[in-house]
Amino acid sequence: MPDMAASLSPLLRFLRFRSVSAHAGSAPESARCADWLATHLHGIGMQSVRVVNTRGNPVVVAEWLDQPAKPTVLIYGHYDVQPADPLSEWVSPPFEPTIRGDHVYARGASDDKGQLFTHVCAIAQLLRATRRLPANVKFLIEGEEEIGSPNLADFLREYRQKLAAACAVVSDTLMIGPDQPAITYALRGSLDVELELTGQRSDLHSGNFGGALYNPLQGLCEIVAKLYDGSGRIRIPGFYSHVSKISEAERNYMRRFGPSDAKILSESGTELPRGESGFTLYECTTIRPALTITGITGGYQGPGPKGVIPARVSAKLNLRLVPDQEPAAIDKLLREYLASVAPAALRVRITTQKATRPSVVSLCHPAIHAAFSAYQHAFGCPPVFLRSGGTIPVVDLLQQILGIPAVLMGFALPDDGLHAPNERMHLPTFLNGIAASAYFLKEVGRTTPTAFHHRTVDHARASNTSVVFTGAYV
Amino acid sequence: MPDMAASLSPLLRFLRFRSVSAHAGSAPESARCADWLATHLHGIGMQSVRVVNTRGNPVVVAEWLDQPAKPTVLIYGHYDVQPADPLSEWVSPPFEPTIRGDHVYARGASDDKGQLFTHVCAIAQLLRATRRLPANVKFLIEGEEEIGSPNLADFLREYRQKLAAACAVVSDTLMIGPDQPAITYALRGSLDVELELTGQRSDLHSGNFGGALYNPLQGLCEIVAKLYDGSGRIRIPGFYSHVSKISEAERNYMRRFGPSDAKILSESGTELPRGESGFTLYECTTIRPALTITGITGGYQGPGPKGVIPARVSAKLNLRLVPDQEPAAIDKLLREYLASVAPAALRVRITTQKATRPSVVSLCHPAIHAAFSAYQHAFGCPPVFLRSGGTIPVVDLLQQILGIPAVLMGFALPDDGLHAPNERMHLPTFLNGIAASAYFLKEVGRTTPTAFHHRTVDHARASNTSVVFTGAYV
Repeated sequence: MPDMAASLSPLLRFLRFRSVSAHAGSAPESARCADWLATHLHGIGMQSVRVVNTRGNPVVVAEWLDQPAKPTVLIYGHYDVQPADPLSEWVSPPFEPTIRGDHVYARGASDDKGQLFTHVCAIAQLLRATRRLPANVKFLIEGEEEIGSPNLADFLREYRQKLAAACAVVSDTLMIGPDQPAITYALRGSLDVELELTGQRSDLHSGNFGGALYNPLQGLCEIVAKLYDGSGRIRIPGFYSHVSKISEAERNYMRRFGPSDAKILSESGTELPRGESGFTLYECTTIRPALTITGITGGYQGPGPKGVIPARVSAKLNLRLVPDQEPAAIDKLLREYLASVAPAALRVRITTQKATRPSVVSLCHPAIHAAFSAYQHAFGCPPVFLRSGGTIPVVDLLQQILGIPAVLMGFALPDDGLHAPNERMHLPTFLNGIAASAYFLKEVGRTTPTAFHHRTVDHARASNTSVVFTGAYV
Repeated sequence: MPDMAASLSPLLRFLRFRSVSAHAGSAPESARCADWLATHLHGIGMQSVRVVNTRGNPVVVAEWLDQPAKPTVLIYGHYDVQPADPLSEWVSPPFEPTIRGDHVYARGASDDKGQLFTHVCAIAQLLRATRRLPANVKFLIEGEEEIGSPNLADFLREYRQKLAAACAVVSDTLMIGPDQPAITYALRGSLDVELELTGQRSDLHSGNFGGALYNPLQGLCEIVAKLYDGSGRIRIPGFYSHVSKISEAERNYMRRFGPSDAKILSESGTELPRGESGFTLYECTTIRPALTITGITGGYQGPGPKGVIPARVSAKLNLRLVPDQEPAAIDKLLREYLASVAPAALRVRITTQKATRPSVVSLCHPAIHAAFSAYQHAFGCPPVFLRSGGTIPVVDLLQQILGIPAVLMGFALPDDGLHAPNERMHLPTFLNGIAASAYFLKEVGRTTPTAFHHRTVDHARASNTSVVFTGAYV
């Protein structure tokens, strides 16, 4: 059994760093956090530990490669965290980790410092007990995940050789509950676009000019209203052309093991859903694309009225894409559609802010087998396979640049409060996670590197996986 | 000739007060502004100067009544100003009045501190030169015009006797250009409403939930898109039922003397108009109602993307009404329509913030004759009679509560940037305005109080005035 006290003490220290990547002023604290992490990894026996500077926050790398005949696992994690506001809603301060009952409360307790530490602790225990690991290990720990990993692609390209591995493990996803682990095998891609509309030269008085002009804010709403049809489908021509049809076997599996409509409604705090007809809400949020207006900026936002026709307004659009939608192609379709529905009196400017391809990991990959066994051993229950509606850019980058699949071994629970006040980590799950990590390395160590090389990586394809849903695992 | 240096120095001091009535925090500054104004009025020789507290910002009153045989003019103005944002677009800071070329730049330079000061300066010069005024004068200067004069009606009711006068003068409207003065005889009413939409319990992750829910921000845009039809007409059923038909004589006058479509487009900095078909843009902004979305608040507005589905969003709606649209009746129609087009999945809350009836002043009133002569003398050119698309709540209140007409002697120019960044006052026009104010008092002084009492006030009716448009003045 893992040793709670020994495991927890360094994690509590790690959680005290205010490594909020969204705050420009926190760069020095992030650097201190990276240095501390490197020292800790060195202390537990990792080798070639380095803190590598980037244009943003540094990346921490480390390795243990004393098993030349065994495959290498690249463990990815991030030491940066979300901003902690609203601070007033925290029961204990976000950067003063506090144990209450079965939980540690702190910003990052789950996302991702706590989940990353399941692996750090597992390796520390293995090295302490046996002076060796069952497979080779590399760590890749960045400090900018919460702001979209802007410097990670360049880093991966530069250190491609150095980071070579048979597979990656990313622990930054959810389980179903403490007794029901899950392996996330598919992520939606994302495309973030800003739409700006400009009308007249400057803001105008709505009394003097109201009725004579096309109000840009009115035009913006009219454009946004044309993005969805009445049945919840996106109206951009060609938008669904490359959406993969998912096998009936997989859809049956999803209906059996995935969250029900009632569960999703309850978790979201909604009474009436608005999904695409013909799909469950779980399907709507995973195998179907979505378009969300995440923000509108326009006109007066203070208290009371103000008689103004704003000259320039903007909207942020977040699209979630599924295989085989290519962000660049969708971006082009979106731009064409927005231009076609925009009122002639208004000038349109579209800026693409971020794009990540959807990704699917083949469930036939030996690393998935290893993770399956590890969960089963550690939690006493086989994991279910989940699709996620979210996007983890590193998964796509690892596939594209290093050519390896990422096994998403999540240890967070749905009520851990990720990105919210009172974020926490469930300690029994943390201990099981440490055990699962150790088992995973043992399972990988039972295979040879060539077993991994024979497997191809599915680049955002949902094929190849149907075998799993027809009985291989379940 | 008015003395520029003597007139300008107090105005520049007046413009430094950040008397932004929309900002609750500016109440102390508004009080300081009122105190300063009272001291200044006392200094120039006004009597019975008082700063009267209300539930909001104080009202400044003053009088000079030493001509018992002459009529009394009530000069109304407001010392509060619009918010100055967006601050980044100001060439010089909004509350540091700056003279560049022929203009003073500052928030309030034109609306309304500058226009009010044409009268203050005229009276100061008359009292300095002759120790008397040609007619009796009362000042009524409030500090809440830009938020809809919420406490003015109560104030007028309480001080009805004290404020008795033959007519009011309000200088808070536009001329056609520096060489073409104008008397505004009709104002649109206004109705300000806030529409709030609530969806799920709290903000959600657009990856995890995008595609399953009705995004309140999407729903808001869809509602707003349903407010106008494709031809520029408002789609609220019954909205146009009580819109008065204007006489052909008046429409002919408007076409001959009012601003052309080209002029309105040029002044607004727009290339393509969007008026109601069958009406000139001048008509669209004066004798036709309008509906403007003046602001939307919803979701993320910072730099870069954020994957959020906002739980609560809102829009501000500003309607401009014409005779005989009653704000209360329109408010009811609007609420019914918004409720009928709102998606069932979202909760709607509608708050009425402000309502003012449209108003029309009879052009047969002797005060209009006096203003006509005053403009002709001061500017060397007879004024034209204009309708305005704007709303000045006090005009309706003065008619309803004190029973007197308000002569709208505007001295602002169309390119003064009212309510916009880089608001300014044209100094040559300011000096002519001072001269016009002095002439106006002299003209009023030539009549007797009874000449005024025999005239009835038109309560928001466009009748009675046709005589003017068929040759009385032009």
